[in-house]
Amino acid sequence: MAAKTDIARRVYNHAWKLDPIVRSLLDTDFYKLLMLQMIWKLHPEVNATFSVINRTKSVRLADDIDEQELRDQLDHCRELRFTKKEMIWLAGNSFYGRKQIFEPEFVSWLANFRLPPYELSRRDGQYEITFEGRWVETTMWEIPALAIINELRSRAAMKGLGQFTLDVIYARAKSRMWEKVQRLRQYPGLRISDFGTRRRHSFLWQRWCVEALKEGIGPAFTGTSNVLLAMDTDLEAVGTNAHELPMVKAALANNDAELGAAPYTVLEDWKQLYGGNLLIVLPDAFGTAAFLRNAPEWVADWTGFRPDSAPPIEGGEKIIAWWKAHGRDPKEKLLIFSDGLDVDTIIETYKHFHGKVRMSFGWGTNLTNDFHDCAPDDLVGLDAISVVCKVTEANGRPAVKLSDNPRKATGEPSEVERYKRFFGTEDFHELLVKV
Amino acid sequence: MAAKTDIARRVYNHAWKLDPIVRSLLDTDFYKLLMLQMIWKLHPEVNATFSVINRTKSVRLADDIDEQELRDQLDHCRELRFTKKEMIWLAGNSFYGRKQIFEPEFVSWLANFRLPPYELSRRDGQYEITFEGRWVETTMWEIPALAIINELRSRAAMKGLGQFTLDVIYARAKSRMWEKVQRLRQYPGLRISDFGTRRRHSFLWQRWCVEALKEGIGPAFTGTSNVLLAMDTDLEAVGTNAHELPMVKAALANNDAELGAAPYTVLEDWKQLYGGNLLIVLPDAFGTAAFLRNAPEWVADWTGFRPDSAPPIEGGEKIIAWWKAHGRDPKEKLLIFSDGLDVDTIIETYKHFHGKVRMSFGWGTNLTNDFHDCAPDDLVGLDAISVVCKVTEANGRPAVKLSDNPRKATGEPSEVERYKRFFGTEDFHELLVKV
Repeated sequence: MAAKTDIARRVYNHAWKLDPIVRSLLDTDFYKLLMLQMIWKLHPEVNATFSVINRTKSVRLADDIDEQELRDQLDHCRELRFTKKEMIWLAGNSFYGRKQIFEPEFVSWLANFRLPPYELSRRDGQYEITFEGRWVETTMWEIPALAIINELRSRAAMKGLGQFTLDVIYARAKSRMWEKVQRLRQYPGLRISDFGTRRRHSFLWQRWCVEALKEGIGPAFTGTSNVLLAMDTDLEAVGTNAHELPMVKAALANNDAELGAAPYTVLEDWKQLYGGNLLIVLPDAFGTAAFLRNAPEWVADWTGFRPDSAPPIEGGEKIIAWWKAHGRDPKEKLLIFSDGLDVDTIIETYKHFHGKVRMSFGWGTNLTNDFHDCAPDDLVGLDAISVVCKVTEANGRPAVKLSDNPRKATGEPSEVERYKRFFGTEDFHELLVKV
Repeated sequence: MAAKTDIARRVYNHAWKLDPIVRSLLDTDFYKLLMLQMIWKLHPEVNATFSVINRTKSVRLADDIDEQELRDQLDHCRELRFTKKEMIWLAGNSFYGRKQIFEPEFVSWLANFRLPPYELSRRDGQYEITFEGRWVETTMWEIPALAIINELRSRAAMKGLGQFTLDVIYARAKSRMWEKVQRLRQYPGLRISDFGTRRRHSFLWQRWCVEALKEGIGPAFTGTSNVLLAMDTDLEAVGTNAHELPMVKAALANNDAELGAAPYTVLEDWKQLYGGNLLIVLPDAFGTAAFLRNAPEWVADWTGFRPDSAPPIEGGEKIIAWWKAHGRDPKEKLLIFSDGLDVDTIIETYKHFHGKVRMSFGWGTNLTNDFHDCAPDDLVGLDAISVVCKVTEANGRPAVKLSDNPRKATGEPSEVERYKRFFGTEDFHELLVKV
């Protein structure tokens, strides 16, 4: 009666050339598709360069990850196309309660989409990976590039471990995840979604975590940013927009007036395409204080804000004060927290703002890549790192992000200084970057 | 590239009639085989009745476990025979450093062994299961009967749970097990073996726990009582003898002199067959104090004692004092602790006796069936219970066990009282029976 070994499967498992990390162009964050449609519609000719930046310098990625494996994975991504099923789903599904959020012409255009070439070199133990070309193509590299780097790093860390050890690692990670679920389910009013695609330990692990939240906190789990997982598990795809929009807009500014207007004109662009719950302001690209100080009155009409680099309670309170100063009732507004969340900060923030404002939490790295101490002998290779893929140039001009935390700033130092002088640096918080 | 579903396997998984719990007659405790050879050689005509006794009355086994499933599992056991491979292994392997511990004639006799019939009825929410016949057959029911009851109870508790919930349950149990391993590995001088067959959550789970100890504490893990697992995983099979030997001997006593001599004549019988590390005294069948008070001098020459119902430190100290009183050096003696152990009691006992006496730990229920609180919603059906299978009659006469803990006494009440009067009850400890 013992289970028989499936010989074909076993041979197959040993013989495959590549175990692809990214197997679908939908294995990306939903906001990339929303932004892609906007770029396709409004900025089809803009060039934008994206670069992978490992902020955790102590981890030498080029020592940990085999270059050929990295190239194979990136090359495999370039073979991917949106499948018919995927395009039909994008066209036919409702997102944020709205049908046909993606225009038929855009979906048709996706049929021929493919990721553009990449450039890869090594320097000081790090990989320099850049994606050059039209923004409407390069933007789509961000998530798969990061997912590949993070999963290759996990694989490298676990290479050579015995089957038993691996079993214990995942058992401990699952057990820990379930403890988080049990803590979170004590607050049924919570609204949490998965934002963990880019930093995930692996695709399969992200899927497990998403299923754990779905099973464990039920309606408090409001969706996943991962479009493929949303499709496959009948969850809502969630997300709105990212720093690349104001960053490109600012880089393309021809004078100070255009630079100062960039954080707001990008919102006007956005509103041409989207409404309702998608009207979420990401205020910190060049500092939240500057953004609020100069914001036109209509910004207060938007549904909510996503503070992404200030401490959540302090950052949220400043936005609430701003809404009040503009005569808006925060109870009708939404705050989306998404920076370096763990269970403690989620619960603390929830308790603080409960009853004062609507809120939701986009839970990332600590959801999908919390393996610290899960390995029987401490495997530092399983600790998550802070690696990002940022727009660094637009039409040949340098792109800059400041954020509310100077450690998260990206861009050429001289340009960063120019932006700081221009926007000011009040309320900046030098914080350890949480992964 | 997605893994394909193996259709044949899936159909098979749904179509099988029975998922047998006990699949080999070697899936039993090693001491049963040692005792079996002694019974076969010295007491082949004695009749002995074994009865299953659930001490955890609050758990109504007949409500939890389907009677037909129970019968199917017991019936399946009766179809089992020792296979050629198993007999060759028993004949050819060394046990406790000794070759041919099993006589060729005994191994030949095993070829035709089969478990005798059982009787099963229901009463007050419990199953009454008895095995009547020749001792040399009925004795072998103890372990498979208990393993079947405990695993059917686990299966019933988990029936209807989703795949995800099951995944979490085992992840948490594995994670907890590994925490135990990590605590135990801090004491490299420990000697621990698996005694958990009878109370195991399931066969596969016992195997996982044994592999965890093998991988995790290395040479501190000295073996398993489970003969099948010892054979399959190249571990030492460990164990010596059990209460049924003095219980039957005492039941067959024709007068007070024979009754008083029974605890020692059974050791003389044992020594005819076995030596060295198998010369372990199980002193508590009718109370350790009485045993030591009346023990002949030669008992102090035996290798060690297995105190099985007194608190370990107190019980161990009394035996050490007795050895010293008889001029023996405890440092050359062995104490085997096996009653209700968990990591705390193992470590506490180890620290107490370290350097004073050799010792080893036979870890049972808390090793192979510690699922308390592992289920997302409290499933009491996964908490281990105290169920035993004891000899209750020998040649038609009632059999009695007192032990050092009156709550572990078995036998007809009037007989228990007679034994208490005869052997005395000094140093008895009324303790909660640990499972």
